[in-house]
Amino acid sequence: MRGSAFFQRAFRTFREHPTFFKLLIVSTVSGGGLLTFSDASPFQGLITESSQNEGKKKKVVVLGTGWAGTSFLKNLKSSSYDVQVVSPNNFFAFTPLLPSVTNGTVEARSIVEPIRNIVKKKPYNVEFKEAECYEIDPVNKKIYCRSNQSSTLDGIEEFTVDYDVLILAMGARVNTFNTPGVEEHAHFLKPGKEILKPRLDLTLQEVGDAQRLRKSIIDCYERASLPSLSEEEKKRVMHFVVVGGGPTGVEFDKRITTFATEKFQRDGIDVKTGSMVVKVSDKDISTKERKTGEIVSVPYGVVLWSTGIATRPVVRDFMNHIGQAKRRVLATDEWLRVEGCEDVYALGDCATINQRKVMEDIAAIFRKADKTNTGALDLKDFKEVVRHICERYPQVELYLQKNKLKSFDALLKNAQGDDKKQIDIETFKKALSEVDSQMKSLPPTAQVAAQQGEYLAKCFNRKELCEKNPEGPLRFRASGRHQFHPFRYRHFGQFAPLGGEQTAAQLPGDWVSIGHSAQWLWYSVYAR
Amino acid sequence: MRGSAFFQRAFRTFREHPTFFKLLIVSTVSGGGLLTFSDASPFQGLITESSQNEGKKKKVVVLGTGWAGTSFLKNLKSSSYDVQVVSPNNFFAFTPLLPSVTNGTVEARSIVEPIRNIVKKKPYNVEFKEAECYEIDPVNKKIYCRSNQSSTLDGIEEFTVDYDVLILAMGARVNTFNTPGVEEHAHFLKPGKEILKPRLDLTLQEVGDAQRLRKSIIDCYERASLPSLSEEEKKRVMHFVVVGGGPTGVEFDKRITTFATEKFQRDGIDVKTGSMVVKVSDKDISTKERKTGEIVSVPYGVVLWSTGIATRPVVRDFMNHIGQAKRRVLATDEWLRVEGCEDVYALGDCATINQRKVMEDIAAIFRKADKTNTGALDLKDFKEVVRHICERYPQVELYLQKNKLKSFDALLKNAQGDDKKQIDIETFKKALSEVDSQMKSLPPTAQVAAQQGEYLAKCFNRKELCEKNPEGPLRFRASGRHQFHPFRYRHFGQFAPLGGEQTAAQLPGDWVSIGHSAQWLWYSVYAR
Repeated sequence: MRGSAFFQRAFRTFREHPTFFKLLIVSTVSGGGLLTFSDASPFQGLITESSQNEGKKKKVVVLGTGWAGTSFLKNLKSSSYDVQVVSPNNFFAFTPLLPSVTNGTVEARSIVEPIRNIVKKKPYNVEFKEAECYEIDPVNKKIYCRSNQSSTLDGIEEFTVDYDVLILAMGARVNTFNTPGVEEHAHFLKPGKEILKPRLDLTLQEVGDAQRLRKSIIDCYERASLPSLSEEEKKRVMHFVVVGGGPTGVEFDKRITTFATEKFQRDGIDVKTGSMVVKVSDKDISTKERKTGEIVSVPYGVVLWSTGIATRPVVRDFMNHIGQAKRRVLATDEWLRVEGCEDVYALGDCATINQRKVMEDIAAIFRKADKTNTGALDLKDFKEVVRHICERYPQVELYLQKNKLKSFDALLKNAQGDDKKQIDIETFKKALSEVDSQMKSLPPTAQVAAQQGEYLAKCFNRKELCEKNPEGPLRFRASGRHQFHPFRYRHFGQFAPLGGEQTAAQLPGDWVSIGHSAQWLWYSVYAR
Repeated sequence: MRGSAFFQRAFRTFREHPTFFKLLIVSTVSGGGLLTFSDASPFQGLITESSQNEGKKKKVVVLGTGWAGTSFLKNLKSSSYDVQVVSPNNFFAFTPLLPSVTNGTVEARSIVEPIRNIVKKKPYNVEFKEAECYEIDPVNKKIYCRSNQSSTLDGIEEFTVDYDVLILAMGARVNTFNTPGVEEHAHFLKPGKEILKPRLDLTLQEVGDAQRLRKSIIDCYERASLPSLSEEEKKRVMHFVVVGGGPTGVEFDKRITTFATEKFQRDGIDVKTGSMVVKVSDKDISTKERKTGEIVSVPYGVVLWSTGIATRPVVRDFMNHIGQAKRRVLATDEWLRVEGCEDVYALGDCATINQRKVMEDIAAIFRKADKTNTGALDLKDFKEVVRHICERYPQVELYLQKNKLKSFDALLKNAQGDDKKQIDIETFKKALSEVDSQMKSLPPTAQVAAQQGEYLAKCFNRKELCEKNPEGPLRFRASGRHQFHPFRYRHFGQFAPLGGEQTAAQLPGDWVSIGHSAQWLWYSVYAR
C-alpha cells in the first residue's frame, strides 16, 4: 500500500512537471499495453471532422505514443501544425514501473496516462486515432492504417492518412533471434509479436505483457498446489527463467554486475552466463554452452524473454522502399531525419542515428579551416571552426574526454609531437584518425527516446525562426550552416531495481550507487 | 482519485470489520473475476500434503469463494474441521463495486481479497485449490475437479476430493433464456458461460467481466473516432443496450422506479418496457413488443445482459442424481440442507430454500398443540407451541405483519369471529389457510448469500453443543426438537447507484431515500 501510494504520487509529479523527467534515469523501454481513458470530455470533435485545411498549417502525423512520441507531443508548442496521432495504444505508459506492475507493487492504471489528456491544452490542433500503421508510402506522403479495437462486434476498419511531415516513433519489437518456440511460449515486457492481424478474439492483448506475466506466475503457484501434480511437475512449474542480460537482466557497470550477481545468488537465483538459448518448447528450455557446445534442457514454468530489440515489419518494409534495405536498423542523420527520404523523422527505438565519420569529411573540414588556402593550417583561423567541428562530430569530444585532452589544440599538438604553428593535412588526418572509434549507437532506452522527442519538438517550435537564422554548425561539404543544432544525448545514468529494496544505480561522472540508498535516490528523482 | 481512495478505505474497513458488513445493503451479486494473490507467504504447505487424517476431524469441502462461501469461511470458528476450498477464483470480490470497476471509479484490485488472506489465522485447518468442480458424487461423497490455470504451458489437471460435509456455494450463471446470439455477443456482469472447457488460450477470462465491458465501451468510442466510419456506423457503435430490469437495471420500489426512469430520461437513456429480446446478432438486437407482437431491430455497439440467473450445469447434473430433476433450482430445507441427500449444504445463488407449507403440516401441528387429545384446542396449552410455529413457518409472521395482526391469538380470533375458549381443527385450518400465500423465495443477492454463509458457519461452530442441547423449534411431524434454529433472512434494504452522484435506497420499514443523500448514506455504511 505504502509503495503503491508512493508510485501514484511519483507519477502525478511526473505528469505535472513533465520537464522534470529529464532527471528520470531509466533503462526500461516502451511496451506493455493498457486500457486507459480520459475522464474529461475525451471525445471533443468525435463526430465532426477536424478542420484539416485551415490556412497553410502543416500536417504532422505522429506514429506511436511511447516515450518518443509522447515527449514530442508534450514539448510541441507551436500553433502552426495540425497534428494527427496514430497509435494502437490510446495512452502513454510510464514503463520504468512496468516490473512493479508484474510484482504487484503498483496498479497498472496508475502508470498510464490517456494521450487525449496529454494533448488537451496544447496550442496545436490534434486528433488521435487508435489504429496501427501497416504501410508507409513516402512517395505519395501517405500512411495506411488499420483499427485495432478488439470488440467482437466490429470488422476491421482501414483508412489512410496524408502527411506533410511524418514522425516515426513506433518503437521496436522483441528480438527472438528466430529461436524456435520463443514467440509461442515466452513472455515479453515489450511487444513480442506483430499485432497486425485483427484482434477479434477478445484476447485482451492490450491489458499488457506485465499483467499477463504476473498472471502466469501466479498460475504456476496455484498449479503447484494442486494435489494431482507429481513432485517433479511441481518443481518444473516453480522454475522461472529470464533470458537476457541487459538492464532488464543483470548487465551494467562491472561493480553493479558483481553486486547484482551476488544478490541474486543469495536470493537463490542461478545466473548462467556463456550459454545461449537454442529452443523453447512448451515445458523445456534448451541452452547451448558456448565453450563446450553441450545442449542442456531445463524444465520451466515461465520464461521471460528480454534479449534486446528488432525492427518492426512495417519499418522494415519502409526501409526497403527508401534504399535502406541493407541496414539492420532504420538510419537517421543527427537531426533525426530519415536518410533517403524527405520529411520523415524517426526517433526512439525504431531508428538509430547514423553518425557521420570525421575521416569521410576530413578534406572538406581542412579546406574550410584553411581560409587562406595555403595547404597548411593557421591555428588562429582554425579556432573559429573548432566549435562547429565538435558540434557536428560529437565523437571528437568523446575522444578528447577519453584521452584526457583538454582541447582540440592538445589533440593537434599530440599528433605533431611539438608546438608548430602550422599544421598540414597529413598531420591533421593523423590527429583525427582515431576519433571515429568513439562513435557508438545510443541505447534503446526511454531516456534517449524522451530526449529525442523533446529535441525534435523544440526544432519544430523554432522552425520558422531558424529558417531565417540557422543556429546549427557550419556545413563542411557545402556552404552555409545547418538549420538546427544536431541532437546530442545527455546520459543521466541508469537505475536498476534488483528486488526487495535493493537498487543499483550508475550515474554520470562514473558514480555507482548500490543498495538501499540507491533505491531512495531513485525515489527522490520522482518525489518532491 | 478521491472516489478511488474512498473505496479503498471502505473496502479496508470491510476487511477489518467483517461483521460490520451485515449493514451492507446491496443487490449486486457474485461474478466478475480477477487475479489476486496474497503477499504474506501464501503457500504455506504448498508442497507437503496437509494432515488430512488428524484425529477425527470432519472434512468440510467448500465449493466457491463468492459471498456465501467467503462468509462461511470468515465465520467458521471451530477447530474441529479440516476445510478444503475449491474455486476457480483464488479471491473474494466485493461485487457491489463491480459497476464502479466498469466505469473506472475504482480499480479492480481494490475490490478483491485473496482467499488465503481471509482464512490465514483461522483455528481450522484449511487448504485452497484453484479449480472448478465439474461433478458431484453424493453416493461416494466425492467431487471431481479440473484445474483452470490459463498458462499455455500446462495441460489440464484433474483430481478428486473426498468430503464428509459438502458446502455448495458456487453461485449461478446468467440466464440467457436460450435467446439466440446472447452468449456470443452480449456482455455479462456475472458468469455468462460455463467455463468447464480448459482455458488454454490465454483469453484471461479471470480479469473479469467488468473490465471487459469497460474495454468494449472504450473500444466503441475509439472506433467512432476513426475517419473511415460512416455516420450510420458511428451512431451504431455509440448505442449501448442494457437488457433486464432487475436491480442491475431499474426495477425497485415504485417510487424508486419513477425516480430512476426520470433520471434516465434526463440523461438521454431510453427505457423500453413491455418488450422482449428475441435475438442478438453481431450488430443488431431484435425485440418483440409484448402487446403488438411487432419485431423491432436496433443496431448496437455494446449489449449488457442482466436478466436474472440460471442453474449451473454441474448443479443441474447433481439435481438429476438426487431426485430433484423436476425442480428449476436446487432445493434445500430451512437449515440449508440439500433435499434428497446427506451431508450436503447449499447456499447463495446456487440454491433456494424450499419452505415448508403450514397447510401440509396442519394436522400434526394441531395434534402437537392438542396435548390433552380432546380434538379441541385449549388456548393456554396452545401458547406453548406458538413460538415454535412462528419459527418453523416464517410465513406466519409475515402474514401477521401484512394483515396488521398483533399475535397468533388475534389470527385465531379473526377466524372464529368471537372469543371462544376452544378451537377445533376446522377453525384452525381456516385461520391458517391464507398464511402460505406469504411464502416467497429469497432474492439472489449478496445480502442473502452472506447471511446464509454466516448462519451455516455458526451452526457448524455449535454443532457438538447442539447435538446435546437442540436449540431449534419442535418437530411437528416427529418427536423432539430441531437441532438448530432455521435460517431466517433479515432484509436490510437495498441501494442502487444510478450514475453521477445519484443513488436510490430502499430501507427496512418502508423507507425510501433518493438522490445525493442516499449516495452518502451508502458511503456511510462502509466508512466509519
